[in-house]
Amino acid sequence: MATQGKVITCKAAVAYEANKPLVIEDVEVAPPQAGEVRVQILFTALCHTDAYTWSGKDPEGLFPCILGHEAAGIVESVGEGVTEVQPGDHVIPCYQAECKECKFCKSGKTNLCGKIRGATGFGVMMSDRKSRFSVRGTPIYHFMGTSTFSQYTVVHDVSVAKIDPKAPLEKVCLLGCGVPTGLGAVWNTAKVEAGSSVAIFGLGTVGLAVAEGAKAAGASRIIGVDIDNRKLDRAKRFGVTEFVNPKEHEKPIQQVLVEMTDGGVDYSFECIGNVSIMRAALECCHKGWGTSVIVGVAASGQEMATRPFQLVTGRVWKGTAFGGFKSRSQVPQLVDKYLKKEIKIDEYITHNLTLEEINKAFELLHGGDCLRCVLKV
Amino acid sequence: MATQGKVITCKAAVAYEANKPLVIEDVEVAPPQAGEVRVQILFTALCHTDAYTWSGKDPEGLFPCILGHEAAGIVESVGEGVTEVQPGDHVIPCYQAECKECKFCKSGKTNLCGKIRGATGFGVMMSDRKSRFSVRGTPIYHFMGTSTFSQYTVVHDVSVAKIDPKAPLEKVCLLGCGVPTGLGAVWNTAKVEAGSSVAIFGLGTVGLAVAEGAKAAGASRIIGVDIDNRKLDRAKRFGVTEFVNPKEHEKPIQQVLVEMTDGGVDYSFECIGNVSIMRAALECCHKGWGTSVIVGVAASGQEMATRPFQLVTGRVWKGTAFGGFKSRSQVPQLVDKYLKKEIKIDEYITHNLTLEEINKAFELLHGGDCLRCVLKV
Ligand SMILES: NC(=O)c1ccc[n+]([C@@H]2O[C@H](COP(=O)([O-])OP(=O)(O)OC[C@H]3O[C@@H](n4cnc5c(N)ncnc54)[C@H](O)[C@@H]3O)[C@@H](O)[C@H]2O)c1
Ligand SMILES: NC(=O)c1ccc[n+]([C@@H]2O[C@H](COP(=O)([O-])OP(=O)(O)OC[C@H]3O[C@@H](n4cnc5c(N)ncnc54)[C@H](O)[C@@H]3O)[C@@H](O)[C@H]2O)c1
Ligand SMILES: [Zn+2]
Ligand SMILES: [Zn+2]
Ligand SMILES: [Zn+2]
Ligand SMILES: [Zn+2]
Repeated sequence: MATQGKVITCKAAVAYEANKPLVIEDVEVAPPQAGEVRVQILFTALCHTDAYTWSGKDPEGLFPCILGHEAAGIVESVGEGVTEVQPGDHVIPCYQAECKECKFCKSGKTNLCGKIRGATGFGVMMSDRKSRFSVRGTPIYHFMGTSTFSQYTVVHDVSVAKIDPKAPLEKVCLLGCGVPTGLGAVWNTAKVEAGSSVAIFGLGTVGLAVAEGAKAAGASRIIGVDIDNRKLDRAKRFGVTEFVNPKEHEKPIQQVLVEMTDGGVDYSFECIGNVSIMRAALECCHKGWGTSVIVGVAASGQEMATRPFQLVTGRVWKGTAFGGFKSRSQVPQLVDKYLKKEIKIDEYITHNLTLEEINKAFELLHGGDCLRCVLKV
Repeated sequence: MATQGKVITCKAAVAYEANKPLVIEDVEVAPPQAGEVRVQILFTALCHTDAYTWSGKDPEGLFPCILGHEAAGIVESVGEGVTEVQPGDHVIPCYQAECKECKFCKSGKTNLCGKIRGATGFGVMMSDRKSRFSVRGTPIYHFMGTSTFSQYTVVHDVSVAKIDPKAPLEKVCLLGCGVPTGLGAVWNTAKVEAGSSVAIFGLGTVGLAVAEGAKAAGASRIIGVDIDNRKLDRAKRFGVTEFVNPKEHEKPIQQVLVEMTDGGVDYSFECIGNVSIMRAALECCHKGWGTSVIVGVAASGQEMATRPFQLVTGRVWKGTAFGGFKSRSQVPQLVDKYLKKEIKIDEYITHNLTLEEINKAFELLHGGDCLRCVLKV
């Protein structure tokens, strides 16, 4: 490759300050070091976590940075010792790494790899605790170990999932975050069985993926809960069988659901990030066995509460990150499922723009009509 | 039987008012009606739930009542249609019923039978919504469907576990509540595996039974947490391998435990009933898989809280009632385990008194030195 071992100058959207429009800049991307992979990003979507950090509400957010974590691309070059991918491979960068050797990866109980957190949490790469991005000599922080709002990015080798090159990158980029999170919350975290009743709070991309996962698992009732009635029609196409708008009820929503379901649902999923809805989601579960899974990410410092009696009488409170999927092992399997038409992706893409239009894409994300907006990078 | 079908007049300890000494009275116990069993109680222990209701803090407590729910006795007579026990059978009355036919019993997922709750929660019997106890014509409420602080009591047939007559009733009475709760929290609710690390908050009867259960399950580290250093020596005999007194640490206790265990314990158990300790018990669990089980019963209206991030990063929050044991099916199995010396009981009995001395027994319960005080009834 002509670019291998050299700095690449390319376009990227830089977040210089919280809440200020991203700036499309010529960014210098250093070559990958040992254990690193430089990826040409072809398509990226936006997710609420990007918006949250960009808003400045994330106390761990670092600026200036390059956001983005739901993308797909092609390996441009690899650093020393990288064996599992090579230039030309089609990949999805994963914010959840999978090293296969840390105590988390080896536990068989979680997908939360611990290997590179000490670096990704600080916006740098492991080997030298430095960034590979700079603009006119100023380093720009990495974000979530992915930084996909750039034509080229550098990621750790434990963070790239190699996928079938036949998969359309403009679609499967969504398998970097929201869709697997919802599907996995149902399949891996809750393990919903056929015949179960399910309540889903929040019918954005994540909630709809929960509905799709629940339908695939054979759930008999899938109750969608959203304050926006416009979500209803679309939700039906993803498997939702009943719709409840809390604003149209005087009673607390958990009580409405308990009455609708003769005692409560078997499984509930919070896909909003609102701590009082997390409580409602737990409390609408059936006594004795109802399990509630928190998928939404609450603002920093917020706390959720309930009476312990809720748990003593058999309800279970869980959460999920990336739906419990092991990224490098399982994202390629999800790509295959998409190719076999076993899971949807196209239906979540409501808008297509280019990287230059990223500020407009953030506006769309907050508009309510948008599920995922895919940017051509 | 000479007494069958007749009212029996016998001694019982009546709680006329919250926080006033119990009164030993001649109580009239009506014969069992259809689906009911009259049991001669020979031995009863005291548990904190009795003390809690007696204290007046339980908003659902009804007075006057006959407390008591950890006991053993012999069936005196049975009402119409009762087939599973007969006069002379040795039994343990169970506050957790098991009807084997309600949706809870048939779910295969919980021990919380729903059949008679509508009556036991109101201190009466199902068939006529009346009490079988009276003193000089005044009805006295039942308690938890058991009311074992009486020489005779009437219970629903779905609430009596028939046990091996070889078992010493002065010991196995403890299998009515505290000991199964602790063992079952480990075996049924948490399902602790060999090699696990465990933290136990509160080393009373329930916490010690958790330690015993964890040891039997092969846990490698069993960390006991109590504010009373006197609990240490005894706890070691029940399997506790390390002891931590939160009062001797400046840091929050969850942080102390996370540091001691390189990231947190695999399982934790709250056996106190304190909502801030419930939080600590969750937060001392290992990221990715740590599971916390609430066993203690908090005072009415209290709420527990944590940051949702604790669950999103893989911790699980559960609770248990009667350790998840199905009462009629499994209490007899626990009796057999005791007879085979596979579980302890004698070691939890620190005091023996008579029913007449019940007020002294309540004082002992609050003293800190007492695990279980067994009363000869
Ligand atoms: N745990 C993880 O690994 C993970 C991964 C991706 C996203 N997330 C989180 O999942 C959440 C959902 O993401 P998304 O992309 O689907 O978001 P979204 O904003 O598209 O969807 C949220 C939905 O909730 C509805 N809503 C808002 N407030 C409500 C209320 N009070 N009651 C009922 N409905 C309400 C909105 O109308 C909207 O339809 C976010 O918090 C996101 O950060 C978590
Ligand atoms: N879930 C159920 O089915 C069930 C059944 C029986 C009992 N319980 C409950 O279990 C709890 C324990 O019962 P028990 O009989 O073992 O009680 P106990 O009073 O004998 O034991 C409690 C222990 O906790 C310790 N403690 C108190 N505050 C503490 C603190 N802040 N930090 C650390 N240690 C502290 C005390 O020193 C004592 O050793 C009670 O709340 C009881 O109501 C629940
Ligand atoms: Zn995301
Ligand atoms: Zn790992
Ligand atoms: Zn008890
Ligand atoms: Zn039942």
